[in-house]
Amino acid sequence: MFMKADKKEVKMTEKTGKKVGVGITAEKDELSEWFTQLLQKAELIEYTNVSGCYILRPRAYSIWEKVQKYFDDKIKKDGVKNAYFPLLIPKSNLVKEQKHVEGFTPEVAWVTRAGDTELAEPLAIRPTSETIMYPAYSKWIRSWRDLPLRINQWANMIRWEFKNPVPFIRSREFLWQEGHSAFATKEEADAEAKRIWGFYADVYREMYAIPVLKGKKTDKEKFAGADYTLTVEAYLPSGKSAQAATSHCLGQNFSKAFDIKFKDKDEKDKLVWQNSWGISTRSIGIAIMMHSDDKGLVLSPNVADVQVAIVPIFKDDKEKKVVMEAAEEVKSSIKNFRVELDGRDYSPGWKFNDHEMKGVPLRIEIGPRDVKEKQVVLVRRDNGKKENVKAKDIKEKVSAALEDIHNSLYNKADKLLKENLAKAERMADLLKLLEAKKLVLVPLCDNPACEDELKSQTGGAKTICIPEEQPSLGGKKCIICGRPAKYWVYVGKSY
Amino acid sequence: MFMKADKKEVKMTEKTGKKVGVGITAEKDELSEWFTQLLQKAELIEYTNVSGCYILRPRAYSIWEKVQKYFDDKIKKDGVKNAYFPLLIPKSNLVKEQKHVEGFTPEVAWVTRAGDTELAEPLAIRPTSETIMYPAYSKWIRSWRDLPLRINQWANMIRWEFKNPVPFIRSREFLWQEGHSAFATKEEADAEAKRIWGFYADVYREMYAIPVLKGKKTDKEKFAGADYTLTVEAYLPSGKSAQAATSHCLGQNFSKAFDIKFKDKDEKDKLVWQNSWGISTRSIGIAIMMHSDDKGLVLSPNVADVQVAIVPIFKDDKEKKVVMEAAEEVKSSIKNFRVELDGRDYSPGWKFNDHEMKGVPLRIEIGPRDVKEKQVVLVRRDNGKKENVKAKDIKEKVSAALEDIHNSLYNKADKLLKENLAKAERMADLLKLLEAKKLVLVPLCDNPACEDELKSQTGGAKTICIPEEQPSLGGKKCIICGRPAKYWVYVGKSY
Repeated sequence: MFMKADKKEVKMTEKTGKKVGVGITAEKDELSEWFTQLLQKAELIEYTNVSGCYILRPRAYSIWEKVQKYFDDKIKKDGVKNAYFPLLIPKSNLVKEQKHVEGFTPEVAWVTRAGDTELAEPLAIRPTSETIMYPAYSKWIRSWRDLPLRINQWANMIRWEFKNPVPFIRSREFLWQEGHSAFATKEEADAEAKRIWGFYADVYREMYAIPVLKGKKTDKEKFAGADYTLTVEAYLPSGKSAQAATSHCLGQNFSKAFDIKFKDKDEKDKLVWQNSWGISTRSIGIAIMMHSDDKGLVLSPNVADVQVAIVPIFKDDKEKKVVMEAAEEVKSSIKNFRVELDGRDYSPGWKFNDHEMKGVPLRIEIGPRDVKEKQVVLVRRDNGKKENVKAKDIKEKVSAALEDIHNSLYNKADKLLKENLAKAERMADLLKLLEAKKLVLVPLCDNPACEDELKSQTGGAKTICIPEEQPSLGGKKCIICGRPAKYWVYVGKSY
Repeated sequence: MFMKADKKEVKMTEKTGKKVGVGITAEKDELSEWFTQLLQKAELIEYTNVSGCYILRPRAYSIWEKVQKYFDDKIKKDGVKNAYFPLLIPKSNLVKEQKHVEGFTPEVAWVTRAGDTELAEPLAIRPTSETIMYPAYSKWIRSWRDLPLRINQWANMIRWEFKNPVPFIRSREFLWQEGHSAFATKEEADAEAKRIWGFYADVYREMYAIPVLKGKKTDKEKFAGADYTLTVEAYLPSGKSAQAATSHCLGQNFSKAFDIKFKDKDEKDKLVWQNSWGISTRSIGIAIMMHSDDKGLVLSPNVADVQVAIVPIFKDDKEKKVVMEAAEEVKSSIKNFRVELDGRDYSPGWKFNDHEMKGVPLRIEIGPRDVKEKQVVLVRRDNGKKENVKAKDIKEKVSAALEDIHNSLYNKADKLLKENLAKAERMADLLKLLEAKKLVLVPLCDNPACEDELKSQTGGAKTICIPEEQPSLGGKKCIICGRPAKYWVYVGKSY
């Protein structure tokens, strides 16, 4: 029913004769068509009459709940506390940090009226919360004893982008967590930003079964108001990258703008060093795009709400009684997993398709003959493999299969990533590699004009990240201007 | 430092010579002063420059997290699924159900601009989500097989009330859960509304240690668009009631407006029966007002983030070493509770006050002599009682004390409630009882004009709820118009 995005693109190209890659927009439409169908048929997303705002249906929201729990436990153990800050930010707050306001103002949704009353000052719906949180930080922080202050919130954000909205990936409203920390020293801030960066890679590896590239954003691509931005990036089967989560060192930019000072042990007044960091419901979209196939959704077991669906097979009421009893027994034998016994009034074949569409990692089929032979049939969603399993081995086999599904998905994504990493030092090579949808490491200087030029010469590719592990630069020249390069940076198409 | 609201009001009355109760507003200001101080000194709330929008600091938010967990587990076990619906609702959705739009329009915050672009249609920030959820319900529900549909979301709401805002109790932004169900029959809807009503009473009893009155709202006070509203109400030491959570039977009002039909087993198209139900962060305010005292916050152990604070007492480094070692041992012996070992660089006395202000239910003091005698001192926040406890008994004693604190708080609140219930059949008696801050059961007819008249004659008292357990009406007359009464209803001042 579905085609994988990359397959479809190839087909499309054959049909239209258009060159895939540089400057071609068909792929985006194609992806969007495939993705749109999948999201609706797997009951993940419902569209509304507000463009760019989507309903996260229970099957999607439950993924988010699992990621929340995992990450929330991690940061609480690390000493972070949760809080909640107001949705609405007065315009006068928003404009306090110059770079920040420039970065966000174009996409702010403004509340200008309440009931019939025009508001004296327009209120922004938070696109991110620095400017509503930091005036409070300025009140709360007085002394070195008040530091570090590390607060996180789980909340909804609005960024009214005028680009083509895509559910999860670029929606006008999204859910995320945003951590906001203040430290006495730059060293502590740097260390936290790095640690959280690692947590984000953990989320993708452990929960979504996705390997990420860890790197730093270029100055041009960093968060508006940050000193630097650490990012994790995912490479998707469509050949595009997606920024997957970011951890920003804000330096003292906001503490200057919001006057966040503390009296240090040496009795001197000092500005705090700040970080902010976030991961959003975009991550769900990344996971869906990464693993899903032509039968629908494929989910890693750790985020799947139902990990095992038991489908009973019977012809008449007599068989039904026997099979349902055995199925209940199977269910209770694996109750430490998330199991659904599908007793709905539909045919087994219909149910197989339904669970495949909805991404249930494992299916257990059980019919009268299986009951007689004290066995079940175990079917994997990721590769379709079937296995007869003896009743006494079910728990162990299910556990092993779920673990293996996680690892297989991860390894497949890792292979995809590694096969698509490339390197170029000349524009002609870069263009050829981009056309083949590679993620290309190039030497670049740090002049923002070179990044603009890069984008224009490649028909929209941009710098993805300066990877943590840098090959030697050894006198390499910037691929654009030919002056000495400052770093190796990945270049590719991205969402 | 603090006075209990009711005490202060009495004082105020003595000083000003004003009559307490009917028509007197000093009590509100007084409560607000006491409450405001408490919320800030206990680090629960921070004010912002948006009137009526408050920061829920970690100590307040952690209460909400515990209530969320408790209620979320309960409704999931009952078959409800979580989802997330958009924040913004087009004006055209909002106006579809006539009573509903009349009820909410005056307090809607409107988004009219995004970036520099005026929106074609204003978007309401949800005051409640019926009108963004039910168009989707209309798409999802086709057949009796799709029912019941029971979805909940945890989300932020905005109701731009122009009354004096009070943190938690009447804030313009609040957090809540809203459950929205659709059923094939009225009976199922009635049964769910009742069950959820019971869950809300459970939340107050089990988590907040508060008894509630269960009743039905009068037609005048019910939810805008509902057939009827079930409510739980708390009676506070200030002498006012607070609506604590509500469960609404919407009947077919919204299914008509949003065309939510299903094909039943008999092949006929029918409208679904709907409920909606919610509990909000107002509940935190109710709990704070109920239990707190002149030393600051008092919290029931089940919602306290820190249940036990261990305060080490020492004079020098030598003592410190011995005491801290023993304190660590104590901590690990009670690690199944939420324990904080307070190693901060402040005096023990300062810490005692701090933990009392912040409502930590139990304090353990441990000094050099305690170490020698293999004991600690256990101090209860609710009644200040101290007890020497042998090291080997700590776990058991802490467990028993936390349970007893919960029960004591509940019983005290229950005594307060019972002592303040009264009954009146004549206006003169009602006025006298309201003046004494009683919650008064009166016979009333169901004419809304009588409720208006009641409010006006009593200087602002209103109907709180028609209690579940109704005394016999036996020919009683409406306290306002003298025609036959329809029910006994509680009347009092309320937030």
